[in-house]
Amino acid sequence: MDVTLQPFFHPTGIAVVGASHDPVKLGYGVARNLTQSGYAGAIHLVNPRGGELLGRATHRDLADVPDPVDLAVIVVPAAAVPSALRACGARGIHAAIIASGGFREVGPEGAALELEVARIAGELGIRIVGPNCIGLLDTHLPLDTTFLAPPPPTAGDVAFISHSGAICAAVIDWASGQGFGLSRLISLGNQADICETDVLAPVAADPHTRVLTLYLEGIRDGRRFIEQAERVSREKPVVALKVGRFAAGQRAVASHTGALAGHEAAYNAAFARAGVIRAETNEEMFDWARALAWCPLPQRRDIAVLTNAGGPGVVAADAIEALGLPLASLSESTVARMRAVLPTAASVHNPVDMLASAGPREYSECLAALLDDAGVGAVMVIMPPPPTHSAESVCEALVPVIRGSRKPVVLTLMGDALVRRASELLRAARIPDYRFPERAASALATLVRRAAFVGTPPSAPAQFADVRARDAHAVLTNAPDGFLAQDEVAQVMGAYGIELPRIVLAPNADAAVAAAEALGYPVALKVASPDIPHKSDVGGVLLGLGDRDAVRAGFTTVQANALHAHPRARLEGAHVQRMLPEGQEVIVGAVHDPQFGALVMFGAGGTEVEGVKDVAFALAPLPRAEADAMIDDTWAGRKLRGFRNVPPADRAATMEALMRLGQLVADHPEIAEVEINPLRVRLDGQGVVAVDVRLRVHRH
Amino acid sequence: MDVTLQPFFHPTGIAVVGASHDPVKLGYGVARNLTQSGYAGAIHLVNPRGGELLGRATHRDLADVPDPVDLAVIVVPAAAVPSALRACGARGIHAAIIASGGFREVGPEGAALELEVARIAGELGIRIVGPNCIGLLDTHLPLDTTFLAPPPPTAGDVAFISHSGAICAAVIDWASGQGFGLSRLISLGNQADICETDVLAPVAADPHTRVLTLYLEGIRDGRRFIEQAERVSREKPVVALKVGRFAAGQRAVASHTGALAGHEAAYNAAFARAGVIRAETNEEMFDWARALAWCPLPQRRDIAVLTNAGGPGVVAADAIEALGLPLASLSESTVARMRAVLPTAASVHNPVDMLASAGPREYSECLAALLDDAGVGAVMVIMPPPPTHSAESVCEALVPVIRGSRKPVVLTLMGDALVRRASELLRAARIPDYRFPERAASALATLVRRAAFVGTPPSAPAQFADVRARDAHAVLTNAPDGFLAQDEVAQVMGAYGIELPRIVLAPNADAAVAAAEALGYPVALKVASPDIPHKSDVGGVLLGLGDRDAVRAGFTTVQANALHAHPRARLEGAHVQRMLPEGQEVIVGAVHDPQFGALVMFGAGGTEVEGVKDVAFALAPLPRAEADAMIDDTWAGRKLRGFRNVPPADRAATMEALMRLGQLVADHPEIAEVEINPLRVRLDGQGVVAVDVRLRVHRH
Repeated sequence: MDVTLQPFFHPTGIAVVGASHDPVKLGYGVARNLTQSGYAGAIHLVNPRGGELLGRATHRDLADVPDPVDLAVIVVPAAAVPSALRACGARGIHAAIIASGGFREVGPEGAALELEVARIAGELGIRIVGPNCIGLLDTHLPLDTTFLAPPPPTAGDVAFISHSGAICAAVIDWASGQGFGLSRLISLGNQADICETDVLAPVAADPHTRVLTLYLEGIRDGRRFIEQAERVSREKPVVALKVGRFAAGQRAVASHTGALAGHEAAYNAAFARAGVIRAETNEEMFDWARALAWCPLPQRRDIAVLTNAGGPGVVAADAIEALGLPLASLSESTVARMRAVLPTAASVHNPVDMLASAGPREYSECLAALLDDAGVGAVMVIMPPPPTHSAESVCEALVPVIRGSRKPVVLTLMGDALVRRASELLRAARIPDYRFPERAASALATLVRRAAFVGTPPSAPAQFADVRARDAHAVLTNAPDGFLAQDEVAQVMGAYGIELPRIVLAPNADAAVAAAEALGYPVALKVASPDIPHKSDVGGVLLGLGDRDAVRAGFTTVQANALHAHPRARLEGAHVQRMLPEGQEVIVGAVHDPQFGALVMFGAGGTEVEGVKDVAFALAPLPRAEADAMIDDTWAGRKLRGFRNVPPADRAATMEALMRLGQLVADHPEIAEVEINPLRVRLDGQGVVAVDVRLRVHRH
Repeated sequence: MDVTLQPFFHPTGIAVVGASHDPVKLGYGVARNLTQSGYAGAIHLVNPRGGELLGRATHRDLADVPDPVDLAVIVVPAAAVPSALRACGARGIHAAIIASGGFREVGPEGAALELEVARIAGELGIRIVGPNCIGLLDTHLPLDTTFLAPPPPTAGDVAFISHSGAICAAVIDWASGQGFGLSRLISLGNQADICETDVLAPVAADPHTRVLTLYLEGIRDGRRFIEQAERVSREKPVVALKVGRFAAGQRAVASHTGALAGHEAAYNAAFARAGVIRAETNEEMFDWARALAWCPLPQRRDIAVLTNAGGPGVVAADAIEALGLPLASLSESTVARMRAVLPTAASVHNPVDMLASAGPREYSECLAALLDDAGVGAVMVIMPPPPTHSAESVCEALVPVIRGSRKPVVLTLMGDALVRRASELLRAARIPDYRFPERAASALATLVRRAAFVGTPPSAPAQFADVRARDAHAVLTNAPDGFLAQDEVAQVMGAYGIELPRIVLAPNADAAVAAAEALGYPVALKVASPDIPHKSDVGGVLLGLGDRDAVRAGFTTVQANALHAHPRARLEGAHVQRMLPEGQEVIVGAVHDPQFGALVMFGAGGTEVEGVKDVAFALAPLPRAEADAMIDDTWAGRKLRGFRNVPPADRAATMEALMRLGQLVADHPEIAEVEINPLRVRLDGQGVVAVDVRLRVHRH
């Protein structure tokens, strides 16, 4: 852990700068919460008017504060923050939480003040959380530097790191109602210094934290986040809610890949690489966090459902299968054990319907049987208000069975008042319960996903040793911003082992004919111009020209078509190449994402890429497993294995091209966009042909 | 309303047959609930042992029960139900709720008993709800024939009709906790007689019911359901949760359309036609039902968001835009009104962030300004626990503003204990509140959708007057089950105005050459066999044959290829046709769904239909609006308007072909599957060509 962050998480003494006597002021709230939090270190309340506050003497000046003190919570008006910081420096305090608002969030003047604050902190070596934040809370230390109205959150094992203070306030209150506690809570505010990435490792190091949850509005340094999150998520699950998907602006792009690679694709690729589980809603995030914190991980994906009624069982089965999980097939001995305790009319096949008469004995014995079945990975137990027994009596019988098993069990307690005590009982035993089968199923699916992640060793990106990075660099470094000429593209791609078909630039019709004679008929002719990105769109491409007359006429045609569409385009003649062998066509591309760097795309190629949207993204460079998954994530990729009368194509060569392109863009950040469209995939074993490649250079 | 159902909804007197003295018996529960429900009619408890029960004298025999009595609730053991029904008949009771279990749900013996019960009821003219059900509940009449443990549901305006009794029990309890009431609840059980379709109209006729919610495990008579639901949903919203999607079996199909037209596609098409809003989860169904019951419908789609913090505003904006709704642009006067009450740092653009200091005055004045803005269709107000005011004080100020407006407003109260009183206050004022912006946004989207449905007059299916139904019938009625021969297909399609290219069946190579000479070169050759569905898959199709030699050789080739793939196929020669004009290729097909009848499909054609899955479904016959929507729901359809270098194609002719096919399959239920693949769509104004059509007859 970064030692400069130590005072935030284990302060020896805390000074509240701006502790107020006025109960409606935030400075009062901070003083109140800190003193009531049970914090065991020294607490110093600083107020220029002095006097007593909350039964403690206050200090008129930070300079008067005695040792120990290594953390300041600053709640003075924005304009006074710079001098408060200087006072911290003078007193030897090198960690400050600035709760005060009035900075970047209020406009340009506030932003200037925030810059000044950051500058001062940098000069004095003070680390900052905030400004404009709610602060920091640790229910186990304990410690509470927030100004939120009581009650504080109950102690628990889920840490919450948030870009929004309001969401913190809501989550604390809501979590109490949902019956789970928090371990740590960090409100990061404007992040003038410390950001979400900085706190990942320190929070994960907390032994009381079993799951990290993140509310993110953006990430500043994408690659650093991935690196930190990947390390943390190997040890403890990280669940993130990333919002602001529609707020993000559009960037200028010239390729299909660029048009499809929005911020969301980049975030999804980054989270996938880092092992971060992305939730779509707040409720989903905490539904999953509870299960991750409390349940053992399943050893297999097969789910059993135990219920006392048909309807909820059907709902559960639907939800489980919709999430791609199989319903477990039960062994004969499991079926026999259940038959022994159930009425004959009960359904002993999964979902198991014990009928409405089921009570504590039936529930607990059937659950034990299911958990003993080697074919069962996890169990969902469903309880609509049981008509003849109380839900709590059933749960009392279930708890020891669940706690005694190494398989995860989640409960669906359907109802409200009739299941409330049962719910409290489960929560006390750290068994997650949900109101409806759909949410319980989603929690189980997350456990399965986490188990798969933990069970898969991390794989390093593929690195091809035959790559001549310097050759590519030589071309790229001399190229101006914009599209590379075709021969340069061929050099760059060739240096990374992606061969382009031989293409001859013919400045005039005679040269085109000579080239065709040399390459062999039939040939394709494509107008050569740096100004026309999609040449087939403007009639700039002719295929299958079989003799010299056709080539001569064709040269005139593509030039005329191109000029008609782009009257001011620079024309350099036409590219001539021999007609290529047949194959399936896919697209392989990459763009440079401002947050996360190079992003690779694979999918259905051709001119309709953006309409069909059959594409997958991942971060470059690509581990083999991710390249494999990208191909299978798209219909175009699945089709490479063959489909009906389409024979299997060279999937291995496609994967290699994808990984080589990933290595290329990761090595050369000046490549803004590169796109092979189409990559023609020949029959299995015959390789791929990069039919058309465009590469745009842009220095950042 | 069916007059035979009258006693269920407005009984004059109710006999409980099997009223029990034993408090753990269901027969006691029914007696208790009915007597405690406040039911104003006569209550007769029937128990063979006689005596007093719940302060009332019981009758030993149903025959002894005095007038008025027109409804029986039967809670005797299954074996005694037939005699209980006969007693009802003898006493002149023609409506019975059979709560008893032990019928179809327990196996073949129970199913036989259920058939007997239905037969007896039919003979005696007794209508039945159940067996194996929880019964019927009306909170306004009031009336409660269930045996569920108290408390009963609170009175409200949402009716719940359910195929599952356990879900009823859970929903009653859960609804109380969520703060909304039910008007009527009907548990249908095994539906030996009365089913979900029967009760739609009677429940919708209830003045206290504002929204109908349905929990469905299946629908017996699909077309009757659509007819009834369509009528009801014009008056009152119907929200349905249909489960059991994975339980449904696969049926035998031979076409792409059949393979893609699962039960889910049929249900979606049926709900769309009937105006039924399909929810994915229980929570969604009731989130939506509350908004539909309590809010006016929006006059426009633009949503404004009012909040006191940035984070929740971003979450709301994400959710609103993800649902396809626009964020409203605010007028200058609205902005000015808000500026007048807000601090300068507040963000007065949508989402409006009033900052954490916002209290009752800021919330209510800004909401009033937003509601007065003609560009705003609906408002979401968000309240994380306000740091300086209580949530209830804010809500008190908001209620009159909301109730005084004709625009819908939904609240997001984030938290639990800190917003509980505010939530109660809103619910008492019939204003829907949710815990998170995502769920509130989903409720708003449902209001917008309902407004669009109500604002669109119902449109009758397209009927082409030039259709020669009798000609088609003559062919179909003589055809055996199986695929029609090509000439028969041409006759059937031609009768509905879908012309096929002229195709000549050539039994041998000489005939093929003769046909080609007559049709004109180049031609296509396709093996003729009733046993080979996908002819191109087996090399049975050759294109662009340019002269007699090519045709002669081709004939031998397609025969040999076909026999190689299907050695036992019957070969009838080859079909010869002139090569067709170019165009975009789509698929237009139809299948007969066992539940809902003819179902039409449109989408991306070719051989990869099932992989690409770019298809849309609707019920036949097709109203023009639905045909239009189907085309726009698919990428293949949107592309007909033109895309990049693909010119606009004849969308109107495509739509007509779709509607004509719909009329064909609706008129002739013996058509099990019919598929035009591809339908080649020529340039705008040039029409379509049904390149390849297959039609399978199957009598049900």
